[in-house]
Amino acid sequence: MTILDIASPLITIAQRTRQAASKLALLSTEAKNQAIAAIAQALESARDEICRANIADCETAAADGIPKPLYKRLQLDEHKLRDAIAGVRDVGKLADPVGQVQIHRELDTGLVLKRITCPLGVLGIIFEARPEAAIQIVSLAIKSGNGVILKGGKEAVRSCEAIVKAIKQGLSQTAVNPDVVQLLTTREETLELLKLDKYVDLIIPRGSNSFVRFVQENTRIPVLGHADGICHLYIDKVADINKAVSITVDAKAQYPAVCNAIETLLVHQSIAAEFLPKVAEVLEERHVELRGDQRTLAILPQIKTATATDWATEYSDFILSIKIVDSIEDAIAHINEYGSRHTDAIVTEDLTTAETFIGLVNSANIFHNCSTRFADGFRYGFGAEVGISTQQMPPRGPVGLEGLVTYKYQMTGDGHIVATYTGANAKSFTHQDLV
Amino acid sequence: MTILDIASPLITIAQRTRQAASKLALLSTEAKNQAIAAIAQALESARDEICRANIADCETAAADGIPKPLYKRLQLDEHKLRDAIAGVRDVGKLADPVGQVQIHRELDTGLVLKRITCPLGVLGIIFEARPEAAIQIVSLAIKSGNGVILKGGKEAVRSCEAIVKAIKQGLSQTAVNPDVVQLLTTREETLELLKLDKYVDLIIPRGSNSFVRFVQENTRIPVLGHADGICHLYIDKVADINKAVSITVDAKAQYPAVCNAIETLLVHQSIAAEFLPKVAEVLEERHVELRGDQRTLAILPQIKTATATDWATEYSDFILSIKIVDSIEDAIAHINEYGSRHTDAIVTEDLTTAETFIGLVNSANIFHNCSTRFADGFRYGFGAEVGISTQQMPPRGPVGLEGLVTYKYQMTGDGHIVATYTGANAKSFTHQDLV
Repeated sequence: MTILDIASPLITIAQRTRQAASKLALLSTEAKNQAIAAIAQALESARDEICRANIADCETAAADGIPKPLYKRLQLDEHKLRDAIAGVRDVGKLADPVGQVQIHRELDTGLVLKRITCPLGVLGIIFEARPEAAIQIVSLAIKSGNGVILKGGKEAVRSCEAIVKAIKQGLSQTAVNPDVVQLLTTREETLELLKLDKYVDLIIPRGSNSFVRFVQENTRIPVLGHADGICHLYIDKVADINKAVSITVDAKAQYPAVCNAIETLLVHQSIAAEFLPKVAEVLEERHVELRGDQRTLAILPQIKTATATDWATEYSDFILSIKIVDSIEDAIAHINEYGSRHTDAIVTEDLTTAETFIGLVNSANIFHNCSTRFADGFRYGFGAEVGISTQQMPPRGPVGLEGLVTYKYQMTGDGHIVATYTGANAKSFTHQDLV
Repeated sequence: MTILDIASPLITIAQRTRQAASKLALLSTEAKNQAIAAIAQALESARDEICRANIADCETAAADGIPKPLYKRLQLDEHKLRDAIAGVRDVGKLADPVGQVQIHRELDTGLVLKRITCPLGVLGIIFEARPEAAIQIVSLAIKSGNGVILKGGKEAVRSCEAIVKAIKQGLSQTAVNPDVVQLLTTREETLELLKLDKYVDLIIPRGSNSFVRFVQENTRIPVLGHADGICHLYIDKVADINKAVSITVDAKAQYPAVCNAIETLLVHQSIAAEFLPKVAEVLEERHVELRGDQRTLAILPQIKTATATDWATEYSDFILSIKIVDSIEDAIAHINEYGSRHTDAIVTEDLTTAETFIGLVNSANIFHNCSTRFADGFRYGFGAEVGISTQQMPPRGPVGLEGLVTYKYQMTGDGHIVATYTGANAKSFTHQDLV
C-alpha cells in the first residue's frame, strides 16, 4: 500500500488524504480514541518488525558515516518504542479539541449562531532523523481529526515505512480510513508538498533552523514552528544573586541543544561585579564557554571576546555570550533587536521592573524569576506539543492540540433574511449569549 | 507633521510608529477610551475642514472622470462624517480586547503561568476610495493598542490628510502619542510597506479582489481579509419552498455588491421543477439576470446559458448562476471545488441533511435556513468588524477586535529551575488552573 501511494503522483495522494480526512472530521471522540488505541496495539504487535527496520536504517547510516548525535536520534530501540506507544495512549486521554463551542449566541428569535472548533483538514509534517516522531504526530493528527502527510528523513526511511505500515494496519480495523495517513520518502516530494496549498492546510517542519527557514520561505501554506531560538536572561540590578546563578546555569547548561536554552546573558552594570564571578565559576565547572563584551572582560579577564555575531547566534551548545547593560531599557532594546520572540526572562526582586520587562519584551514567552527552559507544552500542562511558534499572530508559544484545529461559524434560522434587519423599519438583533 | 512623515523614509516612519505603539500597548482601558473620545471631539471640530478637503478631492475626481460608484464612495458629506464619528464613540464602548487572561495556571507552588492578550504591534491598512474608513480603522487600532500605518486611495488624499491631521491633533492632548497613526499617500510606499515584515505585524487590505490577491501574493506579513467571495445557496429536496424563495432573493438581490451575497444557486433535481419557476419570477422582478446549466434551461428556457466560467465568477452584481444537482454530495462537491470558503447556506427541513452540509462544507460561515447576508461582524454582535477572513487558520470569518490582538505567555517563579522537574527524582507539576 505504502509503495503504491508513493508511486502515484503526490496530488492524488493529497486528494485521497483530504477525502479520508473529511470523514475523520465528523467522527465522535470515542471513535477517534478507538482508532488511537488500535494504533498503539498495532505498533506493539509490529515491534520486532519496526526494530529490525530501524537496525537496517542504522547500519546504512553508520556505513555512510553520519554524525554521532544524528545516529543517536535515528536509533529506535525497544525502550524508545515503548515510550512512544505509551505517548499514543496518552494522546487518547487528552480532551478532544474538536467540537468545542466557543460562541453560542441568539441573534434574534430562532436565529442562532455557534462558533465550533473543527479540524484544519490535512497537515503536512516534515521531520528529520527521529522516526518515533511519526508515531506522536499521527496520534495527534487523528485526535484533532486531521489527515496527515508525513515526510521523514531519508536515513529513517525503513523505520518510517514499518511504523506507517503498522499504523495503517491498526486503522484498517477502525472507523478511520487508513488513507488519512500518508508517507512520502523523497526530497523531491517535499518540495512538491510545499506547493500543495489547495490540499494541505498547515505545514509543521521539525528540523534544523536553516531547514525551517527554507520551509517558511518556500510555501504559501501556513507554517507552525520557529527557526531560531535566541533566548535571553537579564539579571537586573536588584536580582537575588542565588536565584540569578541557579537560573542562569539551568537556562544554559541543563540541556543546551534545545530552543528554550539561553544564548545571551544580559547583566545590569551595578550588579555585574558581584554576580559575574560567581556565575562564571559554576558555568565553568559545567564546561560552558563564556564570551563577553569589553565591560564583561574587565570583570572576567579569562574569557573570550564576544563579537557582534555572537548576539545573533543560536549556539545550541555549551557556549554563552555575556553583555553588561546600563539599564532595563538597554536590556529590552537588545532583546527586541537580537531575540527570536521565543523566550526571554528577567531575574529581579523589583515587581515594577518585572512588569516593565513583561510589558515591553515582545516575545511569546516572558518569564520572571524562573528558567527559560520551562517554555514547553508539556510543562505548561498542554499534554502534547506540536511545536513552539515564534510568530506574532496566534497560535504562538508552545502549541498543543488547539493549534491543529480551526473553527466554523454555523447559523441556523427559520427562513430569516437580512432585509428584515435593514432600512427604515429595521428589526433589532437581540445578541443574547446562550449558556 | 503629516508632510514631514511622508518626506522621511518609510522605515523611519515604521520605527517611530512601533516605538509609540509599544507605549500605547501598556495604557489602561480608560486612557485608550479617553484618546478615542478626543479623536471624536477633534473630528467634530475639524468637520468643515474635512468636508472642504473632500469637496476638493471630489472635484478632482470628477474632472478625471472616475466611475460613478467610486465617486459615491469617495464623497464624505456631513451626514456620513457624523455617522463615522458616532462609530468612533461606539468603539469606545466596546470591551477592551487587551489584557484578557486566557490561561491562569499554577505549574507548581509559586510557579504561575498566565496567557494574556496583548496588541499585535503595528497594523498596515491599505484601503480604497472611502475616506471615512480611516476613521473607523484608527479607532479600532487604538482600542486594541496597536499603531497603524494607513494608505488611502489616491483619489481621497486630501480627505485622508485632513482626517489624520484632526486625529493627531485630538491625540496630542492625550496619553497616546500621535505617532501611533501614520498616513502614506503614494503607491510606491504601498509596495515598500508590504516588505516591512520587521515592523508591521498585520496587513489589512480593503479593496477589489484583484488588489487583495496582489497584497496576499506580495508580502510575508500576515494578511487579514479575503479576495473572492463566491458564496452558494443550496436548495435541498425537502426545502420549504417559501423559505427557499425568500432566502434566495435576500441572498442575491438585497445588496449584490457585497462579499456575502450569493453567486450560484444549487438546486436538488427533485425540487427544481417546482422551485425554479417561482424563484425566477421574483428574481426577474428584481432585475436579476439568470444563467443556468442545461438542466436548468429545460425548466427555465428563457434564461442564458451558464458556462464553466460562471461557477468561478464573483459577479458582485444582479447576476445569478443556477445549477441542478442530483444529491447533497454533488452540491457539497461543487461548493468545495468552486467556493471561496466564505459563506454557504442550505435550505432544508431535514436536520440530518443540514448537519451533513455543515459538517462537510469547508467554509468559514455555514448557514441553515437563513440568508448568507448575515455573515457579518456587526450582525454577529462583534460591535466592529476589521474584515472577513476566508483562510483556514483562525481568525476566520467575520473578525472583530479580537483579530487585532495576540497573546503572551507570562510566567512568574521564585527561582524555579527545570532541573528540579527532570531526571530520577523529578518533582511533578501540579498543573492546577486558578480561577
